[in-house]
Amino acid sequence: MKIEMLKKHFNEEVEIQGFVDNIRNLQWVQFLIIRDKTGKIQITIEKSEEKNKEIVELVNQLTQESTVKIKGKVLESPKVKLNGMEIIPTEIIVTSLSEPELPFHIKDKESAEIDTRLNYRFLDLRNEYNANIFKIQSELVKNIREFLYQKDFMEIHTPKLQGTASESGSEVFEVTYFDRKAYLAQSPQFYKQMAMAAGFERIFEVGPVFRAEKSNTNRHTTEFTGLDLEFSGIDSYEEVMKLEEEMLTFMLKNISQKYGTLIKDIYNTEVVVPTQPFPRVKLADLYQILEQRYHYQIEDELKNDLTTEAEKLAYQYAMEEHQSEFIFVTDYPKDKRAFYHMRKNEIPQGYDLIWRGVEITTGAQREHRYDILTKQAEEKGLKKDVEFYLEFFKYGCPPHGGFGIGIDRLTMLLLNLPSLKESMFIFRGPNHLNP
Amino acid sequence: MKIEMLKKHFNEEVEIQGFVDNIRNLQWVQFLIIRDKTGKIQITIEKSEEKNKEIVELVNQLTQESTVKIKGKVLESPKVKLNGMEIIPTEIIVTSLSEPELPFHIKDKESAEIDTRLNYRFLDLRNEYNANIFKIQSELVKNIREFLYQKDFMEIHTPKLQGTASESGSEVFEVTYFDRKAYLAQSPQFYKQMAMAAGFERIFEVGPVFRAEKSNTNRHTTEFTGLDLEFSGIDSYEEVMKLEEEMLTFMLKNISQKYGTLIKDIYNTEVVVPTQPFPRVKLADLYQILEQRYHYQIEDELKNDLTTEAEKLAYQYAMEEHQSEFIFVTDYPKDKRAFYHMRKNEIPQGYDLIWRGVEITTGAQREHRYDILTKQAEEKGLKKDVEFYLEFFKYGCPPHGGFGIGIDRLTMLLLNLPSLKESMFIFRGPNHLNP
Repeated sequence: MKIEMLKKHFNEEVEIQGFVDNIRNLQWVQFLIIRDKTGKIQITIEKSEEKNKEIVELVNQLTQESTVKIKGKVLESPKVKLNGMEIIPTEIIVTSLSEPELPFHIKDKESAEIDTRLNYRFLDLRNEYNANIFKIQSELVKNIREFLYQKDFMEIHTPKLQGTASESGSEVFEVTYFDRKAYLAQSPQFYKQMAMAAGFERIFEVGPVFRAEKSNTNRHTTEFTGLDLEFSGIDSYEEVMKLEEEMLTFMLKNISQKYGTLIKDIYNTEVVVPTQPFPRVKLADLYQILEQRYHYQIEDELKNDLTTEAEKLAYQYAMEEHQSEFIFVTDYPKDKRAFYHMRKNEIPQGYDLIWRGVEITTGAQREHRYDILTKQAEEKGLKKDVEFYLEFFKYGCPPHGGFGIGIDRLTMLLLNLPSLKESMFIFRGPNHLNP
Repeated sequence: MKIEMLKKHFNEEVEIQGFVDNIRNLQWVQFLIIRDKTGKIQITIEKSEEKNKEIVELVNQLTQESTVKIKGKVLESPKVKLNGMEIIPTEIIVTSLSEPELPFHIKDKESAEIDTRLNYRFLDLRNEYNANIFKIQSELVKNIREFLYQKDFMEIHTPKLQGTASESGSEVFEVTYFDRKAYLAQSPQFYKQMAMAAGFERIFEVGPVFRAEKSNTNRHTTEFTGLDLEFSGIDSYEEVMKLEEEMLTFMLKNISQKYGTLIKDIYNTEVVVPTQPFPRVKLADLYQILEQRYHYQIEDELKNDLTTEAEKLAYQYAMEEHQSEFIFVTDYPKDKRAFYHMRKNEIPQGYDLIWRGVEITTGAQREHRYDILTKQAEEKGLKKDVEFYLEFFKYGCPPHGGFGIGIDRLTMLLLNLPSLKESMFIFRGPNHLNP
């Protein structure tokens, strides 16, 4: 039985399983605290009682974080601080015995550096703060999928092993593939567009994305979980932004209902359900606004992209002016956008989305016309690596667009975590390959 | 508007988008067939009408498989063979123009070898037979997830880049990871067990799995989509088999309801909803039965595993004796099972599941006790590569078990497809890295 159910079974014989959260071995009595995913319960053992002899012996040998199975009667006990109840055990079985010394204090996140904790991630994840991150992340992805199914999207699974280095050779991991080289997909971009050429119309994927970036920031990792989607029949990237707004609003509404209180309690963060539409601003206009409002000045040559500082100020502006945690930034110059973004009057038909001061998405209408796409690829000096991709557009391909969003980054921002190292089940960085 | 909705809008002005499925340019009239994901519709253009002049010109230049957007009035027309309706267009916009010559006949799967079709997968997937495979596959995975959410499982995302070659070095892809080597995960086995050590209790993952096997069979691939799950608090691998039975029954029941007719029509295959429990047989007993019933004889030394032929006969036996498409085979000898399978009286506490004559799953209760697990790893000659994994069991880990199942193989068997090459969005094999 799960511990959260015990309160419905007072005076009954029950069986629970869990980790030994704490042991107090006093002169006349032993107390165990047992923990499962749903809560904690006190086990009380009177040492003087003859029938407890074996159990007392066993508890004398028991170590914290061992796992046990316990049978006994659950009693309502107002004097017990922990939920006002306890189990009087008739049998305790140790299913696994922990080493007596733990590498660090599980419950105290400050008791060890993040890198030490990552080395013992299986212990680090036992504390409530960390464990709940993944319960919420699972719900977040579930909600996004639910929304997309409702909108008639289907899920596909594209290959992560690729024959060419794709967009740019510099940040791609190389794989020894029998007697040749393969490359790990930096994004499912080309394959989700292939699905459009195949007439799949509306698709998404949730899967790993690989980036061979040797940077050690809180926002970078060499492998993360991406949500990517693509859909056909659009007239403008405005439709892409609209779908993303709706998707995020749907997800945040449901997360707020289910876990709003928990997130407030544990992470001291509000889940804010946004109002639609999210504000939109052109990149050049944004820099003007930031200068006027916050006296933010940078060199003109940096204004062709968003700086980290500008992302933060854009958030401040969106909050102050629009009471919005989100803001779309559009009209980037073409040299800062991928060759496959459609252009109108030389302006890429795409956007970045900023949430709480961090860029979470790049989206766009794609160029689906073979001749123009080929020209745009050549302009960027791409040729051989994208040949297979350009083929997709030779035999008819409907107008389409889409976006990508990192699940781990989304989780980090939702819970206001300090780093991706916290929001990934197992973090991967240049110096993090184990466990 | 989607084509399937048109029948509700007779005599209205509509707009549709799709591929040009066919063009018939006759003396007095032009017919187009337009195709979207939901169906096909005839477009009828009277050449003699003055207002059609531009449209007639445009259709004269149009090629099959181009994409178009069409506005016009939809009419009920009993004389039209295709669904008894047609659109009289007022405007046709060509959104992309296909090359006039296609590499092969899209609708006729026999018009090109499978390998040629795979090279042009984006065209190959346009035919109804192929496109529906992925609609059904998406629904299959959706149903499995739905079942697991109901059973209180959560989804995790484990890293595909690993620091060690894991179970055995021979079939692992090597990645250049900055100044060292990394390896692509052959399965999330170790990490899903880590989630058990972390107290996650019930988890699953849907993600890519990499196998560096240089074999070119219909059943092998170098990358596929695996569903893996693991759960805690079990007493026996019987609980693992039971969960898998329930999961597959749930999925097949829903697929049968939603797509049973479609699957019968297109793939000429029945979706059979199984009855539970599935039959169970010990490996040694199975070989005896196969010898008695079918005079199947092989050398004793081959009887420590299931041969491909024995898998087929096991299916025949299960159908004849138990009217079941599924059969669990248990009690394999320990030298044929992974070191992490729990053993009782030297017998691995796991199983294979055979469906329609093909092995689809290996499942087991895992050994969760550090000392025994370490001994079993050493017996198999594993040491350094599994050190990080053995750590997971040092500080308490509850009893647990789980299984893995390949989504592509499941799809292949569900639809009775001849090969994994058909059931994967993009197939990966030793000679297949493109597109």
